[in-house]
Order: sequence, then C-alpha cells, then structure tokens
Amino acid sequence: MTVQIPVVEKITKANDEIASINRTQLDEAGVVALNFMASPGAGKTSLIERTVPRLAESMRVGVIGGDIATTLDAERATRAGATAVQITTGGACHLDAPMVRRALQQLPLDEIDLLVVENVGNLICPASFALGTHANVLVASVPEGDDKPYKHPRIYRGVDVLVVNKIDLLPYVDFDMERFRRGVRSLNEGLETFVLSCRTGEGVEPWIDWVRCRVPCVTATARDAS
Amino acid sequence: MTVQIPVVEKITKANDEIASINRTQLDEAGVVALNFMASPGAGKTSLIERTVPRLAESMRVGVIGGDIATTLDAERATRAGATAVQITTGGACHLDAPMVRRALQQLPLDEIDLLVVENVGNLICPASFALGTHANVLVASVPEGDDKPYKHPRIYRGVDVLVVNKIDLLPYVDFDMERFRRGVRSLNEGLETFVLSCRTGEGVEPWIDWVRCRVPCVTATARDAS
Repeated sequence: MTVQIPVVEKITKANDEIASINRTQLDEAGVVALNFMASPGAGKTSLIERTVPRLAESMRVGVIGGDIATTLDAERATRAGATAVQITTGGACHLDAPMVRRALQQLPLDEIDLLVVENVGNLICPASFALGTHANVLVASVPEGDDKPYKHPRIYRGVDVLVVNKIDLLPYVDFDMERFRRGVRSLNEGLETFVLSCRTGEGVEPWIDWVRCRVPCVTATARDAS
Repeated sequence: MTVQIPVVEKITKANDEIASINRTQLDEAGVVALNFMASPGAGKTSLIERTVPRLAESMRVGVIGGDIATTLDAERATRAGATAVQITTGGACHLDAPMVRRALQQLPLDEIDLLVVENVGNLICPASFALGTHANVLVASVPEGDDKPYKHPRIYRGVDVLVVNKIDLLPYVDFDMERFRRGVRSLNEGLETFVLSCRTGEGVEPWIDWVRCRVPCVTATARDAS
C-alpha cells in the first residue's frame, strides 16, 4: 500500500502534461471547451439538451460524453444537434486527459466552436484530473441536498461556474438555498452561479447567455468568412 | 502509467484480506453489518434516520459514516439514536477495509447488534472495495433518473438489496419505474427491492422488517440473558 502515493503523483503529472497538449490543440482550432461535472443524475445531459439547440444558430457544438457504460448520453447529445463522441470508460470513475486526447482525434475540431466534455457522474474523482478544457462547470441539483458543498469541498473549490438544476423540485424537498449558498461562498467566493430547471426551462436564459459569451466572436467571424 | 494495473491488483488483494479480518471480528462479536452505497444525496443518511429509531426497541445500532469532509452524517446518526463513528477520508472516493478496521476499533462491538457502514457518496469506486460487511445495500433515488442501472452496471450487479428512495417525487420528475426495473433485472435478477420515501415514510415498513430479520434472534437472546 505504501507505493500508492508516488504512483498517484506520477499519474497526475503525466495527466497534466497531456491536458496541456489538449489545451493547445483546442486553442489552435479555436474551440472553447467546458468540462461538465456532477453527481450521477444531477442533469449534465439534460443541460446539454437544453443548451445545444439554443446555440445552434450562432455556433457549432461538439460533445465528448464520458460514461462507465452505454452510449445513452452521446445519443441524447446527438439528438439535441451536437456532434458527439462517447468515451466508455469501462469502470474508470473519471475522465482523464489521455481519454479526452483520443476523443479529440475523432472530432472534426475545425468545424466546432464550443466543446462540452461531459465527465463521469461522480463528485469526487473528476476534480483531480485536468482535461485541458477552459472552464469547469459543476451541475448541482436540488434533490441532492443543501449539504453537498460542505461534504464535497474539493470539487466546489475547483470550479469556475455552478449550475443549480431542478429548482422546480424546491417545493417538494427540504433544501435550504441560503445554507447551500453559504457553503458555496465559504469555498469559492464570487463563484458565477446559475439557478435553473432543465425540465421547465426556468432560469435557463442567463446560462445560455453566459455560454454564448465564452465563445469568442472571432470564432464565429472566422467561420462566417470561410 | 503501465504500472497502474499491478498496483491496483495488489491494493485490492490487501483490501480483501483485511475485509476478511473485519468479517471475522464482526461475526465473533455477533454483529450483522450492512454496507450502504449510493450517489451523493440519494438518502443514505435519511434511511439511517428512518431506520434506527424503529429498531431501537429490539436492537442496538452502530453506524460508521464515511465522508470526504465534515462529521455531519455521524451527527445525524447519533441524533437518531445510533452509536456513530465518522471516517473522514480526506479526499478518498470510497471506504476500504483498512478504514473500516480502524473504525471498528473505536466501536463497542459487544454492545452493538446491527452495524451500518455508510459509504462515501459515489456510484463507482465503492463497488470495488469489500469491507467485510454481510450485505451490500444500494440506495437509489427517483430524481437521479431511470437510466442509472444501465449506466452503472457494476454496482447494481454487486448488491444484495436495493432501496429506491424519494418515491414522493415521482409525480414531479420523468422517471419510468418499468424502465428502471428492467435495467435492474437484466443485471441482478431477483434483487430484493424496497420502494419507499424516507421523507414521507411511505413504504418504509417492509424495509424495516427486512433489516430486523437480518439480525439473528440469537444476538437479542444473548443480550437479554446478559
């Protein structure tokens, strides 16, 4: 058991190097990439389904879906209008940079403006593996409970954007939004937060605007000119 | 990266050996132990809160709570009437047998009939680590979605009992119980399943009866005689 720590360190370092190669490749292709992380069932795929059709007019969206098994999520992303590639991890509890590297090789990056990488549903392990994406988006959901920032501080600390999904369930569950927000603030002061329901569409507009603003106009212009 | 697999195998083997020591210790003390696994927020702690007070008349309950951070769950278990010990894993994404071994040393096993080990909220990694407990209980929840058996086959295959929690939310979410059950059946035919709501108490009775039947009468008799 004593060998565990050096091996983990070595893996993390190798991962970071490949993440950096991924980032360079994305930047050179003019692709903005978001890493969606969440508990199982919090609504990563539903958020993709809500987001992609709304962006279709102004940009082309790619999705890399990471899952233990099945290609269900990639099929949903494709139906929503994205160009999707599925990574079936076969048991691995997170995506890592080499997996994303292989998926990038299967995507027509020159035809994509925004790439969403949908990580494996897990609040723990994905937080430790950089992928080369430009921003980490955490999708939380109301029925998971207001204690999650307190219990999973690492992932809340490491994200750039928080989406709180399933607010349509607020009347039916015990979820103290103030307690939740207090926990988030203590870990990640000023974290950009969107409170919405993928099911009803409530609150989705500001999130769509945020995504739109992430993709530089230069990309759209370059595409229009081509 | 090539060293990863042998190291993982070595860790799993060492884990299994300690799990076996844990099992012997539990058996010698006449303690029946359940390993509760679930996504974050599916309701492991709520199930403990619903279960412990109902068992208090006939048996003494211990809880080992595993969490990344905070002792919130152990406090809730204690308030429910259990003797609780918290394992704060400090980042580890699952409990393993050595962690449970250390926790067992802090519990008065001679005074406990039923032990609930509340694993870290994660559908993936906990499935790979035996703890020495007598049965694996998976707590699923309705708002997570009906696709979870398909997406997390390993954990569904490896459990002895399934609790489907939060059925009070069925009218407010898109959850096809027949699709969910079909997925479960394809992985674990005949899996003992309890469909309930920890919030309203609906469906809790058959689950309580099941737990009660797991703890052999001999334990209660031995205690009564002492």
